Amino acid sequence: MKLATIRVDDRTTAVRVEGDVLVDLGVSDVGAVLAAAEVADGKEYALAGADFAPLVPRPSKVVCVGLNYRNHIQEMGRDLPEYPTLFCKFADTLIGAYDDILRPAETEMFDWEAELAVVIGREVRRASEDEAVDAIAGFTVLNDITCRDWQFRTREWLQGKNWDSTTPVGPYLVTPDEVGGPRPALDIRCRVNDQVMQKDTTGDLLFDPVDLVRYVSTMIRLNPGDLIATGTPGGVGHARKPPVFLQGGEIVVTEIEGIGRLENRVAAG
Amino acid sequence: MKLATIRVDDRTTAVRVEGDVLVDLGVSDVGAVLAAAEVADGKEYALAGADFAPLVPRPSKVVCVGLNYRNHIQEMGRDLPEYPTLFCKFADTLIGAYDDILRPAETEMFDWEAELAVVIGREVRRASEDEAVDAIAGFTVLNDITCRDWQFRTREWLQGKNWDSTTPVGPYLVTPDEVGGPRPALDIRCRVNDQVMQKDTTGDLLFDPVDLVRYVSTMIRLNPGDLIATGTPGGVGHARKPPVFLQGGEIVVTEIEGIGRLENRVAAG
Repeated sequence: MKLATIRVDDRTTAVRVEGDVLVDLGVSDVGAVLAAAEVADGKEYALAGADFAPLVPRPSKVVCVGLNYRNHIQEMGRDLPEYPTLFCKFADTLIGAYDDILRPAETEMFDWEAELAVVIGREVRRASEDEAVDAIAGFTVLNDITCRDWQFRTREWLQGKNWDSTTPVGPYLVTPDEVGGPRPALDIRCRVNDQVMQKDTTGDLLFDPVDLVRYVSTMIRLNPGDLIATGTPGGVGHARKPPVFLQGGEIVVTEIEGIGRLENRVAAG
Repeated sequence: MKLATIRVDDRTTAVRVEGDVLVDLGVSDVGAVLAAAEVADGKEYALAGADFAPLVPRPSKVVCVGLNYRNHIQEMGRDLPEYPTLFCKFADTLIGAYDDILRPAETEMFDWEAELAVVIGREVRRASEDEAVDAIAGFTVLNDITCRDWQFRTREWLQGKNWDSTTPVGPYLVTPDEVGGPRPALDIRCRVNDQVMQKDTTGDLLFDPVDLVRYVSTMIRLNPGDLIATGTPGGVGHARKPPVFLQGGEIVVTEIEGIGRLENRVAAG
């Protein structure tokens, strides 16, 4: 099953994707679908031309993982870690699958990070392995756009990762049964103006989706609609020789096989 | 003016404090008061025995500042920083002013951090100094309870700072006019079982509330009800010689002159 959140008039609505048709589920967004006891089919829309909102506009948490692809850890010159490195994004960073990424004038080092994101389907705390599997509603695509200069201003990454309206997420929630289960091994790539910058498989993750749900839920409850961005593979602009950063005007395409594709223009913000 | 959020039956409601009386404002919490165009007085309750919920139960952001009191920076062996160090707390960490702090079995280094918190009153982005002053609805008390062992597992602090139901916040929002303006210099202290562990003045902050609203809003919009925890003074358990940590059963009192007082028992969680 595929779900999405689209903008209709001045509101958002959750839809189920049926081929070229989007079926309205009568609640505001995919987060509300996951929190609801049941939803009912309503009006239909054409997929073509749909205006995608952030898949979950107001998740209670966007937990992000750093250093989780073996080859990205190596390009950053680090050893394989014992524990996942976690930071956060606030919901106001999120934009829809085809929205403009707003490049702030305050950065000179605006970079991409293609990521597989886990979408939580039910409340869970201190999850066992089975509970973690059951808590995964599905997967989506996220680009953890980063201001590297701000990321490294202090010892905490937060301020490089939390610029308003920079982080596309969507277009779809795809359930695990469609992608081979809760630990999918899928081609992930990021292109900037048609140049492939990142290309890897989500099977290279050190801490897989089930591990991450277990680890994060040890600390704090996860709620329906919460997102865990699982980290990015090698090929970020900051690690290239020479470094390459987004200047404005580029088209960034972030794609995961079987899950979906984000296409975003970099605009002044 | 003083506002609070209390639990009544199985819901929460926002109240204005009038001496020993709490006046119901007809909306769910202080966050909703700040977001509302207007509120109207309703039913009254006695202050005595009121059950305080987290002052803002679902802020869109809890931005925390590390290393912001000169003497705490010195006890941690660091130089005075050029920029504030920022990390986050998720809303599910928050508890009410007299609720139990849940000490997880997974930590051996459970520590206190008394903090002045700024409560945002209006949406603001890239605030000027005047806009930042206007965006501050008031102040409250927060204790940024921390699992030090988890804080230092990786290079990011998030996982030491985000344990479920550990972080008391409240009991009141106190408007700036009651405490000498938007940069208050007030006695702040933390006691554990009647032993004073932290004692300082909020006038020792390197980055004051107005600076912090300006800095954070450069990155991302701040919304009504958002919290900025401004950092903690010296005297945390981790920096004591020998170190002291909360084992369970202690009473932690966190108090800021003119703003309020948290009193929380440490319970198994």
